Amino acid sequence: MTQAVRHDSMRARNLGVVLGEVRRSGPVTRAALSEITGLTKTTVSKMIGDLIGAGMVAETGTLRDGERGRPGTAVSLSGERVAALGLEINVDYLSACIVDLTLAVRARCTQAVDNRSASPVETLARLRKLIHRAVDEARSAGLVIAGSALAVPGPVDGGLLHSAPNLGWRDVRFDDLPGTGSTALPLAVENEANLAALGELWFGAGHDDFLHVSGEIGVGAGLVVGGALFRGARGLAGELGHVVVSPDGPACRCGGRGCLEQYAGQEALLRAAGLDAPEIGAPQTASRDPASAEAGSPGTAGQTSPPGMPGAVAELIRRLRDGDPAALRACENAGRALGTALTSAVHLLDPGTIVLGGVFAPLFPWISGPARDTMAERLSAMRHAVPELAVSRLGGDAATLGAAGQVIHRIIADPGAYLSATAPRRAGTRSPGNSSPVDGVPAS
Amino acid sequence: MTQAVRHDSMRARNLGVVLGEVRRSGPVTRAALSEITGLTKTTVSKMIGDLIGAGMVAETGTLRDGERGRPGTAVSLSGERVAALGLEINVDYLSACIVDLTLAVRARCTQAVDNRSASPVETLARLRKLIHRAVDEARSAGLVIAGSALAVPGPVDGGLLHSAPNLGWRDVRFDDLPGTGSTALPLAVENEANLAALGELWFGAGHDDFLHVSGEIGVGAGLVVGGALFRGARGLAGELGHVVVSPDGPACRCGGRGCLEQYAGQEALLRAAGLDAPEIGAPQTASRDPASAEAGSPGTAGQTSPPGMPGAVAELIRRLRDGDPAALRACENAGRALGTALTSAVHLLDPGTIVLGGVFAPLFPWISGPARDTMAERLSAMRHAVPELAVSRLGGDAATLGAAGQVIHRIIADPGAYLSATAPRRAGTRSPGNSSPVDGVPAS
Repeated sequence: MTQAVRHDSMRARNLGVVLGEVRRSGPVTRAALSEITGLTKTTVSKMIGDLIGAGMVAETGTLRDGERGRPGTAVSLSGERVAALGLEINVDYLSACIVDLTLAVRARCTQAVDNRSASPVETLARLRKLIHRAVDEARSAGLVIAGSALAVPGPVDGGLLHSAPNLGWRDVRFDDLPGTGSTALPLAVENEANLAALGELWFGAGHDDFLHVSGEIGVGAGLVVGGALFRGARGLAGELGHVVVSPDGPACRCGGRGCLEQYAGQEALLRAAGLDAPEIGAPQTASRDPASAEAGSPGTAGQTSPPGMPGAVAELIRRLRDGDPAALRACENAGRALGTALTSAVHLLDPGTIVLGGVFAPLFPWISGPARDTMAERLSAMRHAVPELAVSRLGGDAATLGAAGQVIHRIIADPGAYLSATAPRRAGTRSPGNSSPVDGVPAS
Repeated sequence: MTQAVRHDSMRARNLGVVLGEVRRSGPVTRAALSEITGLTKTTVSKMIGDLIGAGMVAETGTLRDGERGRPGTAVSLSGERVAALGLEINVDYLSACIVDLTLAVRARCTQAVDNRSASPVETLARLRKLIHRAVDEARSAGLVIAGSALAVPGPVDGGLLHSAPNLGWRDVRFDDLPGTGSTALPLAVENEANLAALGELWFGAGHDDFLHVSGEIGVGAGLVVGGALFRGARGLAGELGHVVVSPDGPACRCGGRGCLEQYAGQEALLRAAGLDAPEIGAPQTASRDPASAEAGSPGTAGQTSPPGMPGAVAELIRRLRDGDPAALRACENAGRALGTALTSAVHLLDPGTIVLGGVFAPLFPWISGPARDTMAERLSAMRHAVPELAVSRLGGDAATLGAAGQVIHRIIADPGAYLSATAPRRAGTRSPGNSSPVDGVPAS
């Protein structure tokens, strides 16, 4: 490593340390940052100047350092300029959201649509429209999209979606999504169950150790241990939907038999309840109020059936509330199968809490009991504590929020990469307080 | 953090960096170490002096630095003084081994004994005798036991063995093992499946991503991802033996039904083969030749039935070789159950290679085929690559070796802790080359 390279990489590392500390401790003075990080005051002041120039940090009043310290100007993370776009393609819906640097949710759009009957080209065309709406909302709030991430229902390697059996897609790339190629950072593509777990970590209950279960047409899971996502050797861990519940059970789309999805996947559940054909019908668009989203109650929780939920699931919930025996029996059986698969998952993964998300969130009152009983029967003699079941506050929004949150976390961990990517454009920006766009997307 | 504390913790960190670099790059000169680590030559020389004084590093001839560099004295990790004691209590055997700082195996003793018919007190008395033999061998080779670790067949938390269902033990502590209280570092107690995986990592095939399956009376697994053990939220991950193979299958000692152990555990296998009563019989002691162990072919591999293997397993292997139909059918069924449980494990954990150890190592020729076929049937449509099955070269020795290896790795990662623990005793040791014991155990 040459001296110059070593110096650059150390500067990048220190910039991440300073911004991370602003996030953790802000509002905080430059003097306090210097003391905490061990960097000189000159270095800290230069870095804070750059971060203010990029709109990532803002001065927020005066603060006295300790008892006898002199008052200094405090800085905090700024939610006023840099933002991330989170996207999701799932089997029966599309969604997009905008999250700012402080992780406040600034815009959300969801569209119910049956992507199984569409080619990747058609689905991406629909997603582009959703992106335009979200980006327009962001621009009108003065935000600039620094990067984007896309959640997809299948295993991903190097940006390639290998296979999404429930969509019938194989080997799909997403290089030309608009509003993403023009951002400073490249589009990240990731499995939806992984991103949903990260969404739960950053926007949900906030525990550091949990297994997040995404119940959709497919069933996936994402494990968070010590605040970090467990990905396995190739990023394919957490495929709870294909854990074997009964070795000679019904054939599954994955090629196996008796997988959890055949008992507790959304389609199996609806079929067992006598709701054979999912009535997804005409695309239904739901743009939620960004103000209420910022206030921190972002969606599908408990027994509500939010806009964007497939009609058949809403109908299932109506029948469950009415005490329909077929619907109740379907949830009982799905819950027991879920409890059996989770027993194997607890033995192998040793998770903290288990958070049920996706359609399992609105169905929680009917599914969690039988799942909990099955786990207790099978686990309680061997384990001092059987993991608790909790309901996701995010429901089907977890993956989209996790996608946007991942972009924000990457920017905060390595602000240098973002600054370098935007430097040529920002060169024209003289004043540090200037709020003109930094990613080449003209302000509206 | 005060200046002094910060300085001490930085010195401890740097000492670990220097020793780690000696291990990675040795033989290496002090000048080269200074260049690699970025520490001053004075600091490096002082640290190397301390490490030589503690017998952790030795001067090993002269080396020229690069093309034009001046010749300097090279240093390497020394296997001549510091060593670790690895111990295992399993259901039908006890074992102990001594490993030096270079991870060479210096002594091993195994005793076949049915610990189910013994109380923890009786078992620990037997283990003490084994420890004495191993420690005597180590002392006569001039080694000093720096620390020890014990592998046990059940979940461990804070040194306490919660429950070992196959032994019938609950809440057992191991505070008073001799030859351990007198060492510099406290005894570590850990689940045998976790330590077996680490044994495979450090002494076996040496891959960085694998799932090691320990087939004993109980069946456990340890997952290594990127060279590190995955432990879950409470260190209880990898209980492959209780993954559900068939939800309504036979009752298991864990309180569940249809667990893998009921199909592929050693007892179930022997019973299915018509070998009902495991003939463990009179304690059989096997002390292997340390010379051959050092040469790197330490034990149970392929079709051999090593000393220390329970008589019934040796008999099963004889019958398998003779083509006995009941024995062959038992392995076929056990292999298919193993393949079903591993299918769930692959979906949840996404391991690299799968290494079959314990009794599955000598039974590999008969068990691996059906397991591989079952996994291929269930996994190959969804995964580009189904994990390979490999045989452990260590067999039943993996956990004991992993226990000793863990102590060595802790010493190398944080030599400062070991130096502080032994400092008062080493104060009398003037000459850096002095080989007197450092842990208060008098030299023989």
